[in-house]
Amino acid sequence: MAELFLTRPEENNESGNTSKQTPLLHSVFSPQDVKGLKIDELIHLASEIRSFLIDSLAQTGGHLAPNLGIVELTLALHKLFDLPKDEIVWDVGHQVYVHKLLTGRRHRFDSLRQYGGLSGFSNRDESIYDSFTTGHGGTSISSAFGKACARDLVGGKEHHIAVIGDGAMTEGMALEAINHIGHTQTRLIIILNDNGMSIAPNVGGYSRYFDRVRNEPMFRSGKEYLTHLVKGIPNYGDRMYHLMSKMKDSFKYLLTPGVIFEELGLRYVGPVDGHNISELLEVLNEVKAYNRPVLLHVKTIKGKGFLPAEDTSCKGAKWHGGGPFDKHTGKFIATGDQRLTYSQIFGNKLIEMAQTDLSLCAITAAMPDGTGLSQYANRFPDRFFDVAMAEQHGVTFAAGLASKGLKPFVAIYSTFLQRAYDQIIHDVCLQKLPVRLCLDRGGLVGADGPTHHGVFDYAYLRCLPDLLFMSPRNQSEFNGMLELMQAYDSGPSAIRYPRGNSPENLPDGTVPLAIGRADKLLAGGDITIVAIGTMVSQAISVAQSLKTDFSISASVIDARFVKPLDEKLILDEVKQSQHIVTIEEGTVTGGFGSCVLEALSRNGSYPKTLVLGIPDQFVTHGDIQKLYQHIGLDVPSLVKTISTWYLRKDA
Amino acid sequence: MAELFLTRPEENNESGNTSKQTPLLHSVFSPQDVKGLKIDELIHLASEIRSFLIDSLAQTGGHLAPNLGIVELTLALHKLFDLPKDEIVWDVGHQVYVHKLLTGRRHRFDSLRQYGGLSGFSNRDESIYDSFTTGHGGTSISSAFGKACARDLVGGKEHHIAVIGDGAMTEGMALEAINHIGHTQTRLIIILNDNGMSIAPNVGGYSRYFDRVRNEPMFRSGKEYLTHLVKGIPNYGDRMYHLMSKMKDSFKYLLTPGVIFEELGLRYVGPVDGHNISELLEVLNEVKAYNRPVLLHVKTIKGKGFLPAEDTSCKGAKWHGGGPFDKHTGKFIATGDQRLTYSQIFGNKLIEMAQTDLSLCAITAAMPDGTGLSQYANRFPDRFFDVAMAEQHGVTFAAGLASKGLKPFVAIYSTFLQRAYDQIIHDVCLQKLPVRLCLDRGGLVGADGPTHHGVFDYAYLRCLPDLLFMSPRNQSEFNGMLELMQAYDSGPSAIRYPRGNSPENLPDGTVPLAIGRADKLLAGGDITIVAIGTMVSQAISVAQSLKTDFSISASVIDARFVKPLDEKLILDEVKQSQHIVTIEEGTVTGGFGSCVLEALSRNGSYPKTLVLGIPDQFVTHGDIQKLYQHIGLDVPSLVKTISTWYLRKDA
Repeated sequence: MAELFLTRPEENNESGNTSKQTPLLHSVFSPQDVKGLKIDELIHLASEIRSFLIDSLAQTGGHLAPNLGIVELTLALHKLFDLPKDEIVWDVGHQVYVHKLLTGRRHRFDSLRQYGGLSGFSNRDESIYDSFTTGHGGTSISSAFGKACARDLVGGKEHHIAVIGDGAMTEGMALEAINHIGHTQTRLIIILNDNGMSIAPNVGGYSRYFDRVRNEPMFRSGKEYLTHLVKGIPNYGDRMYHLMSKMKDSFKYLLTPGVIFEELGLRYVGPVDGHNISELLEVLNEVKAYNRPVLLHVKTIKGKGFLPAEDTSCKGAKWHGGGPFDKHTGKFIATGDQRLTYSQIFGNKLIEMAQTDLSLCAITAAMPDGTGLSQYANRFPDRFFDVAMAEQHGVTFAAGLASKGLKPFVAIYSTFLQRAYDQIIHDVCLQKLPVRLCLDRGGLVGADGPTHHGVFDYAYLRCLPDLLFMSPRNQSEFNGMLELMQAYDSGPSAIRYPRGNSPENLPDGTVPLAIGRADKLLAGGDITIVAIGTMVSQAISVAQSLKTDFSISASVIDARFVKPLDEKLILDEVKQSQHIVTIEEGTVTGGFGSCVLEALSRNGSYPKTLVLGIPDQFVTHGDIQKLYQHIGLDVPSLVKTISTWYLRKDA
Repeated sequence: MAELFLTRPEENNESGNTSKQTPLLHSVFSPQDVKGLKIDELIHLASEIRSFLIDSLAQTGGHLAPNLGIVELTLALHKLFDLPKDEIVWDVGHQVYVHKLLTGRRHRFDSLRQYGGLSGFSNRDESIYDSFTTGHGGTSISSAFGKACARDLVGGKEHHIAVIGDGAMTEGMALEAINHIGHTQTRLIIILNDNGMSIAPNVGGYSRYFDRVRNEPMFRSGKEYLTHLVKGIPNYGDRMYHLMSKMKDSFKYLLTPGVIFEELGLRYVGPVDGHNISELLEVLNEVKAYNRPVLLHVKTIKGKGFLPAEDTSCKGAKWHGGGPFDKHTGKFIATGDQRLTYSQIFGNKLIEMAQTDLSLCAITAAMPDGTGLSQYANRFPDRFFDVAMAEQHGVTFAAGLASKGLKPFVAIYSTFLQRAYDQIIHDVCLQKLPVRLCLDRGGLVGADGPTHHGVFDYAYLRCLPDLLFMSPRNQSEFNGMLELMQAYDSGPSAIRYPRGNSPENLPDGTVPLAIGRADKLLAGGDITIVAIGTMVSQAISVAQSLKTDFSISASVIDARFVKPLDEKLILDEVKQSQHIVTIEEGTVTGGFGSCVLEALSRNGSYPKTLVLGIPDQFVTHGDIQKLYQHIGLDVPSLVKTISTWYLRKDA
């Protein structure tokens, strides 16, 4: 199946990104340059693109496997449709590398996902060819349908296309969109890029349905499918076909592989081989002519052309998106950091606790690897639930488990948990059900950028009644907090932890923790810094600099709990310092610092206050340290801000 | 079809709630008492329950039509299953009146939806027979599935049942749950209570699919259905049946009316007549024995037995839930309040603006009446989109419209907009798309209670970058703000307005509004009250009382904008009064007051502050004035709190 296998060393020793290595690709500066190419040239271009992607991503890292799978489909779309007049919305956004290569962004590929460089996602601010910014799953159908309805209202003629993966198709909003569209006759093309996986192998009824349909030959009509089905029946086939072909239409349409979509009112076409350009062009041409909503089912191979990335087992999941790698050995380049990530610490701790606590369960929404739960899943398959990309269902499902006395730990990235906000309020907090919400990737996530930063969680969770909410400064505190969550059965709890590793400049502190008790790490008389999560480490360094460079003596408190806040300790500090600084890796608008301001007001305490964190803006992508500098959360910026504030205030 | 028609006056002149009128119902004190009843007794009990509901709700108001439709189904479930050991989750929660009547709550029905009385929804805190608190749509399948998985983990034997309406079935989370369940063999019964409507008549592909299937006779198996289908074919029927019955199973299962569910891995049974108790008992008995997930499709008539409520046109929608009515005339009892509701003002203003602005569109998620958009929908059908109960899709669909230059106004109740939180962040704010979010029912909603109060919106929206966010104090300001939103095309905007009518004690103020400019309504030197939305009216009354009773002189500022806040005006006030009080009908945790605290801190201004609003707890149901008293937001409580605070602070 694979065309490229591992790239041969002798051919690619110059990184492959030169016009000599990929001459055809280097002649493409805009989609116009694709339109003139013949089939054999497109096939050759596809090969060059794969070579380019492997070489380039070996250096920068990125979403390799999804993009290797969508080369031919992207070429066919650019060949047949006229961007930017016609518009494509690329679901989840990381399947756009090929599209970027064809829309004038090839020369910037060495900056991919880096600060100031190309975004790793479809981004309206980056190119007129990106019609919608995407990052989360399942948004493409709704947005493309909105665009198509707008076109019809103003009498436009252009095409609107949503390209969605089979994984994202399980997101509730995509299914909601299908329901709405089925009600209309709006002209819209939905392309199901079905590789049988989202990030990890898929779960769910839709997935099994797609699997079955994938193995069908393609039929252009219910009639063709009927022929195929019926003629295959021994002895009776021919006669039956004769009879059935006389039957009414309403019966016939039941007999297509895409029966679900047909039943819901969409025209279904497929499945078609997503790596056969001629076939793709032919079917797309047909689909382009439909005057109603149509779903085209395209079969692709994730990682196509790079063998390690074609691995469909859980092991292959790491090729979904990752760091730089050696293209010859197919091995990722070690970062040299031997520390465990927070996700790994989480997975290990859950295994430890689950061994003795039979009521402990773990839930993921299609991210067993990302959330560190793969080993847990192997050890405790009965108490592990992958609900597919379906965060809403995952949270309420956990509420159901909790209502029967189990202890569900729901591990979802902070940014994706936004999808389940109502479920957290209505099904968890209102019912005081002891669901344990585990928000991975809280704060800035780096290269994935603004669609994936977990910036709003302190603000959107702390306003909910009866929620215990905390954030650890390091590994030992994280473990302690997870133990606390295990033991805390009288209501909902949430923990927010970052991408990456535990810091090393911090003492371990008191464990076990007491609910609502902060941890004072440094004593000082001039200023009190109340920090939470990742910013505790920064605060320690800041305090040291303030002392050394400005002779300002700062206490440092690790708040540990956003809710309930340790008001007593903070009020005691006020008596000493009369200057309270809060630092958080979350929005300053309604976040943790705001929580401290409320506590001070409520207690009639009015020290001078300075709230530091992520400013009220969306933050770009790039290396986290660079982003810290960009928004003033690096140690030197913090020292400058705090010292200026303190010295001016006291002047 | 209707069994009762309008009740005859001579029979019901005593309100009907006596043991004489409904003797059988008065003998039912727990589900045990239903189990012993024979079919004819159950039929009689059904008739008594309808009579009781009509009489009782004529006095109290409530969700009449949904409950009249579910009488026989509820009886059959209680007859066959053993609650509370077996558990039923009733989706959207307002279809539980019959269930409440059978579970020892009949004697409290005159307190329905009143302060201190029975909840209008399924509520875990109210009865051991309510296994899950419900109010929003689509939560039942996820939660019941969680319960079923918990049962299997601990080796339990009980049954778990989700009862979901066809309207709620379009909610993404319900579809996500179906996808997950189809992957398993977990024993679970899903009952689709299909009345062809949610609140208004349904839209969407699922709805059309259900409509078609509703008209099929019931088949117990694919084979029965095949027989029916094929034998109906003229001339060829018999021969074809003979042939097809020899075909492989994998073909046969395609031929059931529930093909969508069968394809997704569920067993489908139905459709069955939901008002025929014998048939229901027979089918439920069969379904009870299945050892895998099964969906039972039950056809019911919304409003069954009370003709005005059986109206399936848009007019009938008012019987979904409403106030007291005259059971003889079928007319609602006028409240005497001639003022327009905020929803009506909204609908009227949108019509006015849409007449001249052809780019204006309106979007509702299955609530054309509730949001005041029915007349707009009639006037501008092309620019009106009912997306079904699908808030997530609705918001991103609007983002698609906005990306093409249209001006979408998305009208969704505050509490339901929680469902679309991620879409607001990721698809609207991050892309700075000018979607107009119109949050109806902001603040306390009264009788519907905690599942429906719109309490968190100030907190969860104000933390989002680039969002213009405001809240009007009265009708004229509301109209001005809607005009402002129409004109504001450079980014997203949101407006939050309450249930009910515009207050009358307020001057009209400056219109047109300027972005970020508050309106000073009263001048006073001791205290500055900064209020927003509904609380501006309270603030005026409070200021008058403070003056009269305590000689405290208070300024009153209508903030108008939560974001951007009029910092300048507030800072100017601080110079005068040094005492800032904020009042909002939203949570004090992270809400509007918190926003004022942040602004003061950011500007190095440290007056004494008092943040008033809804305390950090879920608020019960009941008359809004009673709820204000309950949480201290009525005028006397506010006066007491503020005067005590001011006098103590200055002592």
